[in-house]
Amino acid sequence: MATLKITGTAASDGIAIAPVYLLTQPSLEFERVTVEDSTQEINRLQDAISVAKGQIEKIHQIALQSLGQEEAQVFEAHLLVLEDPEFTGQIESKIETEKVNAEAALKDVSDLFISMFEGMVDNPYMQERAADIRDVSERVLAALLGVNLPNPATISEEVIIIADDLTPSDTAQLNKQYVKAFVTNVGGRTSHSAIMARSLEIPAIVGTKTITTDVKEGDLLIVDALEGVVLVNPTDEEIATYQQRAQVYEAQKVELAKLVSEPTVTRDGKQLELASNIGTPKDVPAAIANGAEGIGLYRTEFLYMDSADFPTEDEQYEAYKSVLEQMEGKPVVVRTMDIGGDKELPYLELPDEMNPFLGYRAIRISLDQQDMFKTQLRALLRSSVAGKLRIMFPMIATLNEFRAAKAILEEAKQELLDEGVAVADDIQVGIMIEIPAAAVLAKQFAKEVDFFSIGTNDLIQYTMAADRMNERVSYLYQPYNPSILTLIKNVIDAAHAEGKWVGMCGEMAGDQMAVPLLVGLGLDEFSMSATSILKTRSLISKLDSNEMKVLADKAVNECGTVEEVVALVEEAMAKLD
Amino acid sequence: MATLKITGTAASDGIAIAPVYLLTQPSLEFERVTVEDSTQEINRLQDAISVAKGQIEKIHQIALQSLGQEEAQVFEAHLLVLEDPEFTGQIESKIETEKVNAEAALKDVSDLFISMFEGMVDNPYMQERAADIRDVSERVLAALLGVNLPNPATISEEVIIIADDLTPSDTAQLNKQYVKAFVTNVGGRTSHSAIMARSLEIPAIVGTKTITTDVKEGDLLIVDALEGVVLVNPTDEEIATYQQRAQVYEAQKVELAKLVSEPTVTRDGKQLELASNIGTPKDVPAAIANGAEGIGLYRTEFLYMDSADFPTEDEQYEAYKSVLEQMEGKPVVVRTMDIGGDKELPYLELPDEMNPFLGYRAIRISLDQQDMFKTQLRALLRSSVAGKLRIMFPMIATLNEFRAAKAILEEAKQELLDEGVAVADDIQVGIMIEIPAAAVLAKQFAKEVDFFSIGTNDLIQYTMAADRMNERVSYLYQPYNPSILTLIKNVIDAAHAEGKWVGMCGEMAGDQMAVPLLVGLGLDEFSMSATSILKTRSLISKLDSNEMKVLADKAVNECGTVEEVVALVEEAMAKLD
Repeated sequence: MATLKITGTAASDGIAIAPVYLLTQPSLEFERVTVEDSTQEINRLQDAISVAKGQIEKIHQIALQSLGQEEAQVFEAHLLVLEDPEFTGQIESKIETEKVNAEAALKDVSDLFISMFEGMVDNPYMQERAADIRDVSERVLAALLGVNLPNPATISEEVIIIADDLTPSDTAQLNKQYVKAFVTNVGGRTSHSAIMARSLEIPAIVGTKTITTDVKEGDLLIVDALEGVVLVNPTDEEIATYQQRAQVYEAQKVELAKLVSEPTVTRDGKQLELASNIGTPKDVPAAIANGAEGIGLYRTEFLYMDSADFPTEDEQYEAYKSVLEQMEGKPVVVRTMDIGGDKELPYLELPDEMNPFLGYRAIRISLDQQDMFKTQLRALLRSSVAGKLRIMFPMIATLNEFRAAKAILEEAKQELLDEGVAVADDIQVGIMIEIPAAAVLAKQFAKEVDFFSIGTNDLIQYTMAADRMNERVSYLYQPYNPSILTLIKNVIDAAHAEGKWVGMCGEMAGDQMAVPLLVGLGLDEFSMSATSILKTRSLISKLDSNEMKVLADKAVNECGTVEEVVALVEEAMAKLD
Repeated sequence: MATLKITGTAASDGIAIAPVYLLTQPSLEFERVTVEDSTQEINRLQDAISVAKGQIEKIHQIALQSLGQEEAQVFEAHLLVLEDPEFTGQIESKIETEKVNAEAALKDVSDLFISMFEGMVDNPYMQERAADIRDVSERVLAALLGVNLPNPATISEEVIIIADDLTPSDTAQLNKQYVKAFVTNVGGRTSHSAIMARSLEIPAIVGTKTITTDVKEGDLLIVDALEGVVLVNPTDEEIATYQQRAQVYEAQKVELAKLVSEPTVTRDGKQLELASNIGTPKDVPAAIANGAEGIGLYRTEFLYMDSADFPTEDEQYEAYKSVLEQMEGKPVVVRTMDIGGDKELPYLELPDEMNPFLGYRAIRISLDQQDMFKTQLRALLRSSVAGKLRIMFPMIATLNEFRAAKAILEEAKQELLDEGVAVADDIQVGIMIEIPAAAVLAKQFAKEVDFFSIGTNDLIQYTMAADRMNERVSYLYQPYNPSILTLIKNVIDAAHAEGKWVGMCGEMAGDQMAVPLLVGLGLDEFSMSATSILKTRSLISKLDSNEMKVLADKAVNECGTVEEVVALVEEAMAKLD
């Protein structure tokens, strides 16, 4: 019988061979029964609570090591719930007075607490408490039922994780030493878990639709996350083949590693810049280790999202300064806060919107809530003397928005100078090009900005009028659509005519099919996941910029569909090999 | 003291002077009390039911006359509820057994029925029954409490309606003889009530935010829906001034009426086409009466939305044939079904989407559910021999979508020919340009389509990445933004290079500030609300197409902001007067 093969979207490169670890939620159903011996039932409850506590303490230790103190705090909160006499006491008294089993008493009391906390809709802190109680109750209930909850943080042997989807916190708990790969039912190349996998350098395949039912605990898998194929219980021959391929892949990685300190140069000697996208100062070492020549996108919203309240000017200053110092004079493009859309803040009340992607977000919030914006700008300006800072505004649609944002920046700068604070005088100020209006009007913007950075994820979804997270229309998320290439060309040509540079910080910048076209269109800076930098540097070294210009012009002027563009690029790439 | 003036968005032209009619929901609160004399309480209930019945019968008669049999049916359903012994019997028995007052018994029983029917979530028929019971119970409750419910259909003296918002069915019940204008808190120029007001030719101002609290029953208002101003309790002098202005406006209307049968020609003799947007065959007479030279957009989704199930091929055929016959050989552009986004069908289960405007809608549904699509295409093809049919596909983003839709059309045509059914052989097939990708790639599309029609409402919101229904970002809905003008120019130039024509069927086509620019950009066909046609014909007759070309080129090449474009057009228009 042929080996079962399951295909999906390769989301993070690599090849892995290991057994299945099913990260799925087991059933916690139970029957509600009358129990005469309350004392024994309360003992059962206390035992289960001890077991749960032990598990949480263990997870807490692991999280402290792998994630750091801040992220591990949630587990301390979980322990506090189990130590709260109000909570455990009510369960015990329910067992005694109502003569029900511990499972039922636990469920009733925790439901009561959860609905009470959830009812405080205006209080995000209490909302989080509700989530804590839900987590903890499930853990105690599982202990009562003798059911094992999956816990990726406690994995201590080599496995391949199989799940419907991984939350960002699931992914963050993965221990690279043991988790050799993961495969999910849902998601695409730009889903959070995919981005996280690339950042952790764990091979991943997403969007298989059926993997959780196709495999079972105990199956051995080959995950080929170069091609997006999973082999279930492969033959010895297949295992040998893939071990061989994994070696070749590792050898290539070694080869690529030699490019870490090399410049990025096309075959005909045109120098380009390869930068990294980062979310926090902690991402900088990986960027440097992968040969980043700069930071092309520092997503500052994580500063806001990982915090219980608006980060202070000083907290922000420390973060920005840290990135600039670590980069030792190499350019760092910091994007001002991009909240809204699918990114919420518990302490910032955003309106419910019918179409959040077309709503109140990013610069639209910053221009509306100027105090918050100015705090960020002051922190940025103060940090500017620590390195080569570039400030970038997201979601700019009109020239008036850019002018308003820049005016606030100038105001903040004057304030600081008046206060006697040093501010660098060579800070470039640019915009994200992610709204079609700005791409179309690039000629006018180019006169006023210092640089553009094309944010392809949003630019593509607005240009195609298709939400890339929506599975029914995700086929319209087409980076190589000639309309997208035409807009990119318009932006680059307009910028160059005014002597300005253009970067790209969307997923497309590290896409090996797109890079030849982008080189041909004249893109100056490519900013991507750190792990894509070296292979992109290698690819660029094989490309002739003039040949790529001919290729790109042909794609823009003659192609009508993605298929035609892909055929064109594949033909050109075949000649290279 | 100066007269209070309230400003809003002028949504439908005209000037009116009349007293306030507050269309707001009165309080129906009551106390739950014990009533010993059940017989008397049941008599109170029966009296209230009689009063409610009388009101509903009256509304039913008015609706029959003003709206027709189909729309009046809902009131027959309301009468049936009150004649249902199951419903009234349960209320009576509750009064008797529980000794509660009629209000409480009515509320309890109706809540029970409503929640029962609403619980049948998969059955839209039952959902509608829940709405019927809610309506009817409120009416009986109001009668019990001696409270008058507002009812726009029963207005029998001249008034100006003041409301938070008007639902489409509220608006449809307005009697033009008595309702001289309406003013609302919410809404914009493109909200449903605004579109309906223009179609009914009732002056309207929307989006005043506060009108329901600024005025009270008994106030006299002047509504200047040319300027978007409401004057509360004006002075005699102000009344005289506005009576004068109203006369001038009426005189202009008489003047415009003379243009009904005239061609649409610029001052320098360039002939253009002014067409009307319609929703049903019943809209055709108003289009003809206002001098439409064609139908530029027939929105067929109303056929689907006003129906309890998918309309059959024959039902659709009759509707399309009726429009074509009424237009007597003038062109009729029929847009295939544009469901999804904010338009739902009770019998078509659409997924819940995070961003419905960027989701599964229009041609994306048609290409996915081809049976439904083919039924519509067959009906269209069969009707084609009754006039000059043009078929238009909405929400086209890629060439592949257009090719797929056209292939299904060809298939349907071949089927009909094989069945011996006559089909016209000169049917033009075109697309809406409402997605930026299609506007950018117009050069490629122009080779394959027979025409374009630019749908500015969506094109603007995608290009600016701003939901125009979202108040927080509606400032970004900018028809005169140079980026929008650039895209329109690209579309028109690309079409003309291939000898194809371009229409526009969004709100912008009838916008007096946009028309000079559109004439200059070379737009061939302008499709709009019937009531905007004559003033647009008058305006076009004053414009020199070459001068407008210079104006439009300047706007596209030199302007960076809306303000600059508006200044340019205002300067040019000032020279005309």
